[in-house]
Amino acid sequence: MTLQVIPVKFQKEIESNDDLVDLILESFEMNDDDILVFSQKIISKNEDRILSLSSVSPSLLADGIASSYGKDPRLVELILSESKRIVRMENGVIIVETKHGFVCANAGIDESNVEDGYATLLPNDPDRSANLLKEKIKQKTGKNVAVIISDTFGRPFRLGQTDIAIGIAGLEPILDYNGKPDTFGKIMQVTAIAIADEICSASELVMGKIQKCPIAVIRNYNFNSSTAKIQEMLRSDHDDLFR
Amino acid sequence: MTLQVIPVKFQKEIESNDDLVDLILESFEMNDDDILVFSQKIISKNEDRILSLSSVSPSLLADGIASSYGKDPRLVELILSESKRIVRMENGVIIVETKHGFVCANAGIDESNVEDGYATLLPNDPDRSANLLKEKIKQKTGKNVAVIISDTFGRPFRLGQTDIAIGIAGLEPILDYNGKPDTFGKIMQVTAIAIADEICSASELVMGKIQKCPIAVIRNYNFNSSTAKIQEMLRSDHDDLFR
Repeated sequence: MTLQVIPVKFQKEIESNDDLVDLILESFEMNDDDILVFSQKIISKNEDRILSLSSVSPSLLADGIASSYGKDPRLVELILSESKRIVRMENGVIIVETKHGFVCANAGIDESNVEDGYATLLPNDPDRSANLLKEKIKQKTGKNVAVIISDTFGRPFRLGQTDIAIGIAGLEPILDYNGKPDTFGKIMQVTAIAIADEICSASELVMGKIQKCPIAVIRNYNFNSSTAKIQEMLRSDHDDLFR
Repeated sequence: MTLQVIPVKFQKEIESNDDLVDLILESFEMNDDDILVFSQKIISKNEDRILSLSSVSPSLLADGIASSYGKDPRLVELILSESKRIVRMENGVIIVETKHGFVCANAGIDESNVEDGYATLLPNDPDRSANLLKEKIKQKTGKNVAVIISDTFGRPFRLGQTDIAIGIAGLEPILDYNGKPDTFGKIMQVTAIAIADEICSASELVMGKIQKCPIAVIRNYNFNSSTAKIQEMLRSDHDDLFR
């Protein structure tokens, strides 16, 4: 069956008191088993995870890193405060492990698509954000949907960024083929597909970065329902050859 | 506009003398600006990049690695012969840089979805494979399409594999927003989206691994035409903090 990736556009900029579900329902009718993908940015704006850089006082460490790496010390202070540890620091790039466990540049802090002098931080608990939206949709429409919060991360080895999942509600994020027969009846051993990340990447294709399209809906994808958390997608230190 | 990801299924197993374009046209009508995504496996089968393990004589190095890492020495021999260098070897996993420059496990050599005792190697020149298909489609249908060859790779930091591009024809693989204004008019600086990889990930959602669906068509995605090669998606050693 043809998979659909449907853009949901908003004319207004999202603020902290907006009801995202009401805004979606103004222009979009949900079906059972739709997967709603929200960009990190509107969730962060909606949850007031947005900060004026002028309100940040850099520590001595942030000042030092900023001067060595050509960064704004207030931004470095924010990155450090959102991180468990620095993973790599080179070529003007700061790769950290965030409090949630995501390995990414700048702790996911982002100055694009917000007012000048402001930056968005990742949601504190993106699984919770996703679950609240899922529950509110159930309340208001009676529909059972899955929800993913998506962000744009770089990666090793390859240029360009792709969208991946930072929070999930209602679906199994990894489709595990281990122990299943392939088309020749042979048992597969290491195939486990990160479908939540693939869904975010598919959604990014309609969201873009300049189209005021912060939500996409995936329709006709047959996912497994689950109460899984995003941590199930993260490699442990021990299991990671590149940490 | 809604993006469509359309599965194209084949009943027959692909062999080296099959005309893939004819097979597609039996059940699918192409439009201008469709993007056709082919799984690596049918391209490898179609190009006879499939080998019986019994035909492989392992070197002493392959024997040594195999015994230390619990692998089939013939498979290790194949991995080494397809690689420029070993990037990591640990936990029974061999990560190499392939001759093409891809960093991946086992040089992309795969024993699933082929007959027992056989393995597929990556196409020798996946860009060329993609270009030949694009040209043949143009000849037979008059339609201008883009073609991507897709494979399933693991990645650092996150569990599960996703599909990414290993060969391209006719589209710009990275959508570069550098210098463009965001929705607040601020100039974006580091945003460049690996849309070819996102397209492969979207396609994997309909291909799956057990559905005899080796091709997907992306419709309604507004891409930039280009003669770019896949190398444009690969980080140089110098630019890679994790090599």
